[in-house]
Amino acid sequence: MAKKYIASANIDEVTIGDGLFGRVSRLVKEQVLPYQWDILTDTAKDAVPDHSIENFSVAEGNDEGYPSHCLANFKIAAGDEQGDFYGMVFQDSDLAKWLEAVSYRLMSDPDAELEKTVDDIISLIGRAQQADGYLNTYFTIREPENRFTNLCECHEMYCAGHMMEAAAAYYKATGKDSLLKIMCRMADLIDANFGPEENKRHGYPGHEEIELALVKMYQATGELKYLNLAKYFIDERGKKPYYFDIEFEQRGRASHFSYLYPPYGMYSNGPKYAQYHLPIREQKTFEGHSVRCMYMASGAVDVARLTGDEELLDACRGLYENMVQRRMYLTGGIGSTPKAEMFTSDYDLPNDMVYGETCASVGMMFFMKRLLEVEQKGDYADTMERALLNTCLAGMSLDGKSFFYVNPLEVDPVVSRENPDRAHVLPVRPAWFGCACCPPNLSRMITSLPEYIYTICDNDIYVNLYMENQATLKLKDQEVKLDTRTAYPHEGTVQFTVQTAGDYGICLRIPAWSSKDWTVRVNHVDVKGSVQDGYLHLDRRWKSGDVIMLTLDFTPRRVYANPRVSKDVGKVAIQRGPLVYCLEGVDNGEGLQRIYLPKEAELKTKYQPEKLGGIYEVRAPGLRLMDMEDETALYASDVEWNYQTTELTFIPYYTWANRGENEMTVWVHERNM
Amino acid sequence: MAKKYIASANIDEVTIGDGLFGRVSRLVKEQVLPYQWDILTDTAKDAVPDHSIENFSVAEGNDEGYPSHCLANFKIAAGDEQGDFYGMVFQDSDLAKWLEAVSYRLMSDPDAELEKTVDDIISLIGRAQQADGYLNTYFTIREPENRFTNLCECHEMYCAGHMMEAAAAYYKATGKDSLLKIMCRMADLIDANFGPEENKRHGYPGHEEIELALVKMYQATGELKYLNLAKYFIDERGKKPYYFDIEFEQRGRASHFSYLYPPYGMYSNGPKYAQYHLPIREQKTFEGHSVRCMYMASGAVDVARLTGDEELLDACRGLYENMVQRRMYLTGGIGSTPKAEMFTSDYDLPNDMVYGETCASVGMMFFMKRLLEVEQKGDYADTMERALLNTCLAGMSLDGKSFFYVNPLEVDPVVSRENPDRAHVLPVRPAWFGCACCPPNLSRMITSLPEYIYTICDNDIYVNLYMENQATLKLKDQEVKLDTRTAYPHEGTVQFTVQTAGDYGICLRIPAWSSKDWTVRVNHVDVKGSVQDGYLHLDRRWKSGDVIMLTLDFTPRRVYANPRVSKDVGKVAIQRGPLVYCLEGVDNGEGLQRIYLPKEAELKTKYQPEKLGGIYEVRAPGLRLMDMEDETALYASDVEWNYQTTELTFIPYYTWANRGENEMTVWVHERNM
Repeated sequence: MAKKYIASANIDEVTIGDGLFGRVSRLVKEQVLPYQWDILTDTAKDAVPDHSIENFSVAEGNDEGYPSHCLANFKIAAGDEQGDFYGMVFQDSDLAKWLEAVSYRLMSDPDAELEKTVDDIISLIGRAQQADGYLNTYFTIREPENRFTNLCECHEMYCAGHMMEAAAAYYKATGKDSLLKIMCRMADLIDANFGPEENKRHGYPGHEEIELALVKMYQATGELKYLNLAKYFIDERGKKPYYFDIEFEQRGRASHFSYLYPPYGMYSNGPKYAQYHLPIREQKTFEGHSVRCMYMASGAVDVARLTGDEELLDACRGLYENMVQRRMYLTGGIGSTPKAEMFTSDYDLPNDMVYGETCASVGMMFFMKRLLEVEQKGDYADTMERALLNTCLAGMSLDGKSFFYVNPLEVDPVVSRENPDRAHVLPVRPAWFGCACCPPNLSRMITSLPEYIYTICDNDIYVNLYMENQATLKLKDQEVKLDTRTAYPHEGTVQFTVQTAGDYGICLRIPAWSSKDWTVRVNHVDVKGSVQDGYLHLDRRWKSGDVIMLTLDFTPRRVYANPRVSKDVGKVAIQRGPLVYCLEGVDNGEGLQRIYLPKEAELKTKYQPEKLGGIYEVRAPGLRLMDMEDETALYASDVEWNYQTTELTFIPYYTWANRGENEMTVWVHERNM
Repeated sequence: MAKKYIASANIDEVTIGDGLFGRVSRLVKEQVLPYQWDILTDTAKDAVPDHSIENFSVAEGNDEGYPSHCLANFKIAAGDEQGDFYGMVFQDSDLAKWLEAVSYRLMSDPDAELEKTVDDIISLIGRAQQADGYLNTYFTIREPENRFTNLCECHEMYCAGHMMEAAAAYYKATGKDSLLKIMCRMADLIDANFGPEENKRHGYPGHEEIELALVKMYQATGELKYLNLAKYFIDERGKKPYYFDIEFEQRGRASHFSYLYPPYGMYSNGPKYAQYHLPIREQKTFEGHSVRCMYMASGAVDVARLTGDEELLDACRGLYENMVQRRMYLTGGIGSTPKAEMFTSDYDLPNDMVYGETCASVGMMFFMKRLLEVEQKGDYADTMERALLNTCLAGMSLDGKSFFYVNPLEVDPVVSRENPDRAHVLPVRPAWFGCACCPPNLSRMITSLPEYIYTICDNDIYVNLYMENQATLKLKDQEVKLDTRTAYPHEGTVQFTVQTAGDYGICLRIPAWSSKDWTVRVNHVDVKGSVQDGYLHLDRRWKSGDVIMLTLDFTPRRVYANPRVSKDVGKVAIQRGPLVYCLEGVDNGEGLQRIYLPKEAELKTKYQPEKLGGIYEVRAPGLRLMDMEDETALYASDVEWNYQTTELTFIPYYTWANRGENEMTVWVHERNM
């Protein structure tokens, strides 16, 4: 790795303006974070958790009217209140993610009252921390004697990791190290118990997360031991004999999630489920639980970058290639089965049985951001954008009041209701989940979105994502102000106004889908240049007031899947710019699987300012397969098929399921005329 | 219902000759029944049960090297041996089905040694019976205090029903009433405990079966109380308040299968699962566990026929219509989900997630046989034949040594292995199952196949199934000998030689698929006649030696599904005569979902006497979708698709998975040239 000054932009350096992300950011600030606070404090009593995804909470006893019980758990652990723990064993992480999101929000938008609330919570967290630094309300309340005995299942390091991320974020936002100190004590306790030394346990977390969090702790504190511990967890994972086998026997084969995964809970899911089947360096494919894979890879890239570990980085590149070439849905969703929320095998991408967890696509953004901090390849940003603008955004309703955990590419509400195999594929977003990982994960990603827009590399500004914003970016040698105006992702024109003179580079991502048709003008003069690794480099002596106008190809286009994806053979999807489109029943009538898009049919766009928050529809003349002559026959020969002409209306995938329960499909039959 | 003399032919009246069913019958006699005996007696130690279908036996403790432990359970219950019960709570039914199958075999082929073995078993069963007539080894050994407290889950009546069927069969085969007397005592005990009287419990079985068995007991003994009890169970089912709710509370909410269906076992699956959501007369659709549905409907038709209950019969007709018009696979498989082995909703027929349990299609044959005893409609026989020649036959390997429980229409072995949603879809047949209902069910159906061929109605012989056989049929007024020669289902010509002179009718089924093209000649003279309800009636004064020659349309044909079956839109299947065909990887290369059959491609047949026991292949020029230009891309636009010409070889579905693990598909993409 070339040693360069490389960093993502800081949140407080970028102010997101109007447009889609302005709206979403406001929603998160004004609607989602306050709502999540009500959930965490159990004041949103009407938010009945939806348990369709996992049978988690029923057996956890969290079905008694508490949306969360999360803050109550901390109060009980702190001795402030009497009571029992309720919720998932990883319930603490809901508060951590909220704190992290609020910290990001405070960076871009200080708020003394909110900061006071956070300080009070941190004080509570401090009281819930044990004398030796241990912090986890489940174990403190329920099983203090069993700390660190079931890393495979019990998410102690996962919860600690999330709280470390919150601590680093709050420190960055406010300069206050109160939570950071608390989490240093917890990190030190973990470090005292786990590591390569003979007197320590040679373990690692069942659910990765603490690795990337320890890197943030290292960056916040400068303490190298945190980076070393992250590296230890990355290196130890997958070594034989497996730590989780040893630990399993040591605790007498007890298990936490046996009701969910019999007979031994998550341990029964085997090594691939938690990515310990092989050392990470030897892993060629993402296996098992998709969210864990993304967090693992994110931490691994961090460690590789900071330690100059090319071998580890190569493994991460290989995993990336495997994912984007064989195991990712068009929408940037990952995870092909609801069973243990896992990857399955290459090209196995069923559209109706898909998991496509919102958290997994959020995790994919974490992974891409880190890869971009290592090497500026537009493909990473293309993938990040694919996840963000399709699956991540679809994870939340347009009003910010309901959320998807699972993001299907094909839904029939009747089948979701009547066929238990599809019970996880909800046709409408519930207000809250028994296992509530996705909504707060979305919040922290949206509030930290400014970090994803730019990567700074020495004196080059790489623009990864296009959205309205006003940025003040710290390059190696100077600070640069840049103003971006655009209606992206709805329109393909992006205007940058340079507000700082100087010699530096502005590198504009040319997405793969626009690589054959794009224009860049600087002060109305066409720039000819070659795109390197997905970016057009504009290197010149900038004057304040220079205007760059980027125009990408927003002609709606047909997209096809590799024919090894058996479920998509003979089908076509529509994309326009970065947005994947879909058909919904409300626009096109029910029976979407009977619709054909002729191969030569013209695709037209129509701006609909009042529809779904303002979108461009894609319209096309389609064909609807008519009933057979004998409508009652289930099977027939000598059938003369007839097709009815129909106008098809495609909408951006992220806007689906905002108009009640109906069918949806991304992939549509294609017909040769 | 017109009061007529109607009956299916008796087993001892029909001797199946050469051809497919001669071979299968011999296999069952020489291979399957002896093998099943070895299983029942735990002497087939190498038959490791396959638990992929249900996690049943692991928790039952039957994973210790016993293939079955079935006979051992009877010995322990009888006090002959010491030990504990092992196996499913319904393990007794395996022995019952074997006894029933052996009885049928003895009808067509007496065997003193085998009869002696059966007599010994009956003696053992007698010793295992309790003083009050109770018979069930699970409850006798494990929970004697809990008899009849969990009808919802515990299959006591189901096991009793199967043993009653065996008793009636053995009585019919040998004239010996030893087992019949045992089962009369058990039936009397059930009758003493359940019924409309105030002092009895108003229950009914969780898994239907005893209803049709009690009808057989009535027919064997002439005791009207058994018919009345069957009618009671049929009528009581679905009345409110639900008996299973009452029973559940009475036993303190204890459950037997909680490990399989948390938290309350099969009770948790709800009323539809066990068809008690509505009184049978009010049911319009088959709901829940598909095998139970078939057994329920079979018993209901029996009761309706014997009691002249038109309303009940109409309900059964309605359920039949719903099934064949909306809920049945092309192969005669039923059950669209592995979850609780259930029907789901109209037109929801996923080919890869299908259950299509062998037992359910065997049960469908029971249902069809009984409908044919009420009214001679060829559609019932068409459906029976669809189930028999496709799903039922596919349930067993060509060598009779391995069995399918699940019968998919689309298999990719890699996905079956790597995607847990498809773990139930095995690409090769296992030798035995932890839950071993299907193999013995196949055996009893095959050994009783003579009963399915003919329905006698006054002096008309309805020929439902075509296969080589020599029959001596008892009509109302005379006995008729009829000799049938044919290579059906491989060839479409069937030759009948009348061997008894007289005035009677011979009614030949003209299957719906041949309704436009068939010929019948009597002594070389074409017969013109109209087909009524699927049968061509030949009424004349027959002379011994008259020859009837039926020729059906065996031109291979394209079959399409109703477009409401979303998974089959744009796809075509091949049938030839009654046989559904499929593609296998071994003949066509892997990647079957990339294959297209052009709409106009000629379908040719080729006889392959040495292949798969002798079959007619169907061959056609097909097209294989080639890789995209960039093979590594997962998604691409501007794709020029290319197709490689390939010769496709279709084989009969029932012969699939006999040449190792490979892909298979019934439905193939169709392409307009």
